Amino acid sequence: MDKAIVLTGGLFDTVHAKTAHGLVRGSERFEIVALIDSVSAGKDAGEVLDGQHRGIPIFTSLREFIASHTEVMVSWCIVGVATKGGVLPEPIKVELTDALNAGIGIVNGLHEPVSEIPELANLAAARGLEIVDIRKPKSFRELNFWSGRIKEVACPKIAVLGTDCALGKRTTARFLNKAMQQAGFKTEMIYTGQTGWMQGAKYGFIFDSTLNDFISGELEAAILDCWENEKPDMMFLEGQSGLRNPSGPCGAEFILSADAQGVILQHNPTRLKFKSLEQYPMDIPALEDEVELIERYGVKVIAVTLNTYLVSLEEARQFQRTYEEKLGIPVVLPLEDGVDRLIPLLKKMIVN
Amino acid sequence: MDKAIVLTGGLFDTVHAKTAHGLVRGSERFEIVALIDSVSAGKDAGEVLDGQHRGIPIFTSLREFIASHTEVMVSWCIVGVATKGGVLPEPIKVELTDALNAGIGIVNGLHEPVSEIPELANLAAARGLEIVDIRKPKSFRELNFWSGRIKEVACPKIAVLGTDCALGKRTTARFLNKAMQQAGFKTEMIYTGQTGWMQGAKYGFIFDSTLNDFISGELEAAILDCWENEKPDMMFLEGQSGLRNPSGPCGAEFILSADAQGVILQHNPTRLKFKSLEQYPMDIPALEDEVELIERYGVKVIAVTLNTYLVSLEEARQFQRTYEEKLGIPVVLPLEDGVDRLIPLLKKMIVN
Repeated sequence: MDKAIVLTGGLFDTVHAKTAHGLVRGSERFEIVALIDSVSAGKDAGEVLDGQHRGIPIFTSLREFIASHTEVMVSWCIVGVATKGGVLPEPIKVELTDALNAGIGIVNGLHEPVSEIPELANLAAARGLEIVDIRKPKSFRELNFWSGRIKEVACPKIAVLGTDCALGKRTTARFLNKAMQQAGFKTEMIYTGQTGWMQGAKYGFIFDSTLNDFISGELEAAILDCWENEKPDMMFLEGQSGLRNPSGPCGAEFILSADAQGVILQHNPTRLKFKSLEQYPMDIPALEDEVELIERYGVKVIAVTLNTYLVSLEEARQFQRTYEEKLGIPVVLPLEDGVDRLIPLLKKMIVN
Repeated sequence: MDKAIVLTGGLFDTVHAKTAHGLVRGSERFEIVALIDSVSAGKDAGEVLDGQHRGIPIFTSLREFIASHTEVMVSWCIVGVATKGGVLPEPIKVELTDALNAGIGIVNGLHEPVSEIPELANLAAARGLEIVDIRKPKSFRELNFWSGRIKEVACPKIAVLGTDCALGKRTTARFLNKAMQQAGFKTEMIYTGQTGWMQGAKYGFIFDSTLNDFISGELEAAILDCWENEKPDMMFLEGQSGLRNPSGPCGAEFILSADAQGVILQHNPTRLKFKSLEQYPMDIPALEDEVELIERYGVKVIAVTLNTYLVSLEEARQFQRTYEEKLGIPVVLPLEDGVDRLIPLLKKMIVN
């Protein structure tokens, strides 16, 4: 595995660094050796994330890292933030210049293509280094149109949706995938964002940077590709945004175009406003209401997973009990308890 | 107005030629002088469309038109079909070569960019002619991200949605816009497809060819632009696809991101299967069910408009009565009766 450093420009301790959070949790594509973040510098990235030490030190700057780690061969610097509109933050641009000067290539998941920033592109060319812009849109000719062939996929597909964006849908999907694999099943996760690809998921596409007319076709094609090559027992589909997030409502594609057999719904019980829309006069819908809306699309919500950011464990347990009583389905806390409790439920959906 | 000819490659008498149908109904951007369609040749385009003569003759080929109309200065040939996946049909490519050879420029609304077909691009360059690819995707830098500023728009916005694609949402929106203007109101239509632009709508964007992350932002930006420049009494938003069309579910953006105050729902009472998905095991939802789903998103369906393709007038009237009884809202037949009956209802929504 290539060694990589993640840049978060002072945002590591916020929801904007969800790409970095995913990479700290684990990746099969890159070995993360350090994080650059002036605000959280001096700590361990795992401890900042969830109190769990992971041996990933945080440095103030790339220069500081390089000065003290002359023997480490780092191949990549990864942009680890997801900004509104996908613009590259200025402090990260400075670090990217240092990276290229130090002979390190760039992996970028923002909309703004680093390969189109002349200073950086020229520097990379001069040094023979690669700039990988994961979100660079595919052209019309490379894209798939939805065909209905999704019905050929004989294994159940579980969509991991959420009541908002940046709630941990990808992390939950990854947990479910690993838990089922450890229980002896052959399962796969279909990624739909840049972080999923960075973490090493093999099948998927990048939702945000796909031309709208081809979203359902690219989703179908990724699932078909996975089915034909792997013949898994089950697939987990990484959802995007939320059905009623006004800044980009999303979710029906996973139910209808990907023909999901069940939904697992991620929710934060105390987050009342959509991410980055604290001033907007619309609240995140109540969990029960979201479940009803999803089920109107013709699929059952089989479980709820709780994001507990800014929720105390005691409060979270109370919400867990209340929701279970109201909805009559399992409600689990993935980060605190894992997702093993859902294995019997998922097992039952696999027909042999 | 520039004179233009519309090419439909033998598909004029099918739902695939909805771009041509719109242009035959009317355009403020182009004066349509003829249509090229080998299947419907010899007839009047208006008569084929809806029995109404419009003085737009149909020819077998562009060559045939040119031979008999040497005195007419045609500026543009417009590709008048919407194919699955947006690929340019071969018979139309042949006609486009003839067009360029005759000194006529090209307007294309398919995903496949005509300006990237080497033979045609070279021919156009050699003859100093323009190829306008309306759907050519905008780059990240030209796109708007959703901001929530939609709340600054003080006039009501009515979304014209449908239970499927190719049902006449754009035509109904256009009818509503004209009816309200004739009744003395200042109204605007926000286009979201290539045909709306071709018909001369001033504000809008092309949904299908926009990067998914910017759909809601482009919609908001078009509405804000219209509001700031025109300060209309009301806007009509051209919807896309249908909320539960598996080949590309769509609609929530118009309700949530565009903050619509009402929905007018277009429906064909006898079309049971989604367009081009006759073999797919999923039916178009019942009208009442679609109304309930839309209203779960927090907006009222204020009227239903019926598409009567392959429905007899007698049948259509029966459906009209039944739906009115069931739903308790006006149900109108735009092509048969116009939409004037909805004016009082819309008038009441305009607060002064």
